[in-house]
Amino acid sequence: MPTIAVDAMGGDFAPEEVVKGVAQISTDTEIDCVLVGDESRIQTVLSSIVYNPEKIRIQHAPEHIGMADDPKVALKIKRQASMVVAAQLVTQGEADALVTAGNTGAAVLACVQTFRPIRGVKRAALASVYPRQIEYPGQDQLALLLDVGATIHCEATELVQFALMGSAYARRVSKVPSPRVALLNMGSEETKGGDALVDAYQRLRRASDVNFIGNIEGHDLAKGKADVIICEGFVGNVVLKLLEGLAELVVDLAGTAARENWRWKLGLRVLESGFGKLRDLTDYAAYGGAPILGFEHLLIKSHGRSTARAVANAIKVAAKAVRDGVTREIASAIEQGA
Amino acid sequence: MPTIAVDAMGGDFAPEEVVKGVAQISTDTEIDCVLVGDESRIQTVLSSIVYNPEKIRIQHAPEHIGMADDPKVALKIKRQASMVVAAQLVTQGEADALVTAGNTGAAVLACVQTFRPIRGVKRAALASVYPRQIEYPGQDQLALLLDVGATIHCEATELVQFALMGSAYARRVSKVPSPRVALLNMGSEETKGGDALVDAYQRLRRASDVNFIGNIEGHDLAKGKADVIICEGFVGNVVLKLLEGLAELVVDLAGTAARENWRWKLGLRVLESGFGKLRDLTDYAAYGGAPILGFEHLLIKSHGRSTARAVANAIKVAAKAVRDGVTREIASAIEQGA
Repeated sequence: MPTIAVDAMGGDFAPEEVVKGVAQISTDTEIDCVLVGDESRIQTVLSSIVYNPEKIRIQHAPEHIGMADDPKVALKIKRQASMVVAAQLVTQGEADALVTAGNTGAAVLACVQTFRPIRGVKRAALASVYPRQIEYPGQDQLALLLDVGATIHCEATELVQFALMGSAYARRVSKVPSPRVALLNMGSEETKGGDALVDAYQRLRRASDVNFIGNIEGHDLAKGKADVIICEGFVGNVVLKLLEGLAELVVDLAGTAARENWRWKLGLRVLESGFGKLRDLTDYAAYGGAPILGFEHLLIKSHGRSTARAVANAIKVAAKAVRDGVTREIASAIEQGA
Repeated sequence: MPTIAVDAMGGDFAPEEVVKGVAQISTDTEIDCVLVGDESRIQTVLSSIVYNPEKIRIQHAPEHIGMADDPKVALKIKRQASMVVAAQLVTQGEADALVTAGNTGAAVLACVQTFRPIRGVKRAALASVYPRQIEYPGQDQLALLLDVGATIHCEATELVQFALMGSAYARRVSKVPSPRVALLNMGSEETKGGDALVDAYQRLRRASDVNFIGNIEGHDLAKGKADVIICEGFVGNVVLKLLEGLAELVVDLAGTAARENWRWKLGLRVLESGFGKLRDLTDYAAYGGAPILGFEHLLIKSHGRSTARAVANAIKVAAKAVRDGVTREIASAIEQGA
């Protein structure tokens, strides 16, 4: 069974929700966790909840990186930050992967500074999942979008490598044997989007180990056309945050409408099951967490607003990825694709 | 009263819906229109509807550019295409602005080839409107997003000019005296997004005639923070199409759910007024149309799926823009900002 290092101090509801998520994992699964952070605060939370002490170890870290901290500055100054100490546990072999709900930029930088890059990988990618319609039986309800912010602008080689890495990750984690990979572009034609995208298109078309379906456009993101969607970090970041903003807006609007208008209140009560589903779906941050790809070890970045359930899910995803040899799969995809 | 040249053959429902839209304008307003396209087909539609013949002139054009045509090839071969002839009417002074629901790429290229650029403008921008929440009294329900596809990648100077042009357009067309202008970025800090955005941020902060509020992120697009949102064409195109795709998805899902499930049917009936509002809002293509900015004349690009109502609205926007001297306002903003 894998051991997961968990940054107890990362996220808007840390350490409470993180510790609760780890406690859940300890009673419900065989996964071992190392909780990294302020020992006394972790103990305080643990003392009030049910957990399996055989499955949880605490590693004290005196500092932590705040959600609003500048990543570069924070990583330079706070050498004893929980996130950094957790990453070091992984490189030292005391844990197999890392889960944090903390500062995303710091998480990427911690990987860059602590983990060894997979041989041949030029730039790291932060991948994220989001729910969309299903188009074929057995298709995963969630699509994988990368990069969503690790590499602002990309060359063709980087986009191709993101496709190889994302495809390998999806093959292992989502159980889709041949995930459909697409480039996010402003047109479906192979001549669209500028030099890097045109070049990446041609190279992916020739790649034998990627199920490349071509370009998709913005309106296809809500459909099930692709399982793995490739774009540069700037675009992926805007898309992901837009999706999150809209999901929140829908839940907000429905709530406000229900409070202010008896008709809506009545209607929403009738629709309750459906709206519950929608809320679940819009709460997709809870589903899995975003892997940082390109290193010999895996970091799963859980959403900053992660609840215990979201943290527990991210730990499960991390454990599954370790068991299924995701980083080896990625390394072999990069080697063959090079 | 301004005269608007209307491409009768552009759009998925041309010429029927376009001609109907112009007919509406002829009976409801003082605006003069020139319908440009296949004269006999235009006459056939006109013969079956009510219109004011004093307000409509027909200009025959034997060819037209299809929605799927390659813009460069089409404009090279089809010199007598309705869109091209309509643009020429404007440069010849027989009309004051142009409305088309046709091929977007061809519309941009027709402007480039036919209209004179405003002195100092480096690249054209295609702007589009979309609905979002309101944050202050009197704020326009629609935000202006540019560029959405005319210029794929942008230098700082181009982004700054888009801000000047978009701000001038919004001042005149939306009646907001000092529209809030923002850069779409992957973080709110001024150091984010790469060289072009960092440089544009500093220059916009110093620009006295732009109400620059800084960077906004993807999740702010659904809020009312900004009135004019600036980005390069690639990003704007993805964002706009994603918004369109999601709007369609919501309307689709609600319809399907209502057909398949009596509970949803009942619930939606109770919520009818609200959902009607939502459908109206998601049908925002109907609201105004997208101006192509940067030329001495204005082209309003109406959505490809425009109905008569959408075409009529685009004509009203074009006439208002002419009356309010939008292109002069833009020219003066560029001159002062240079």
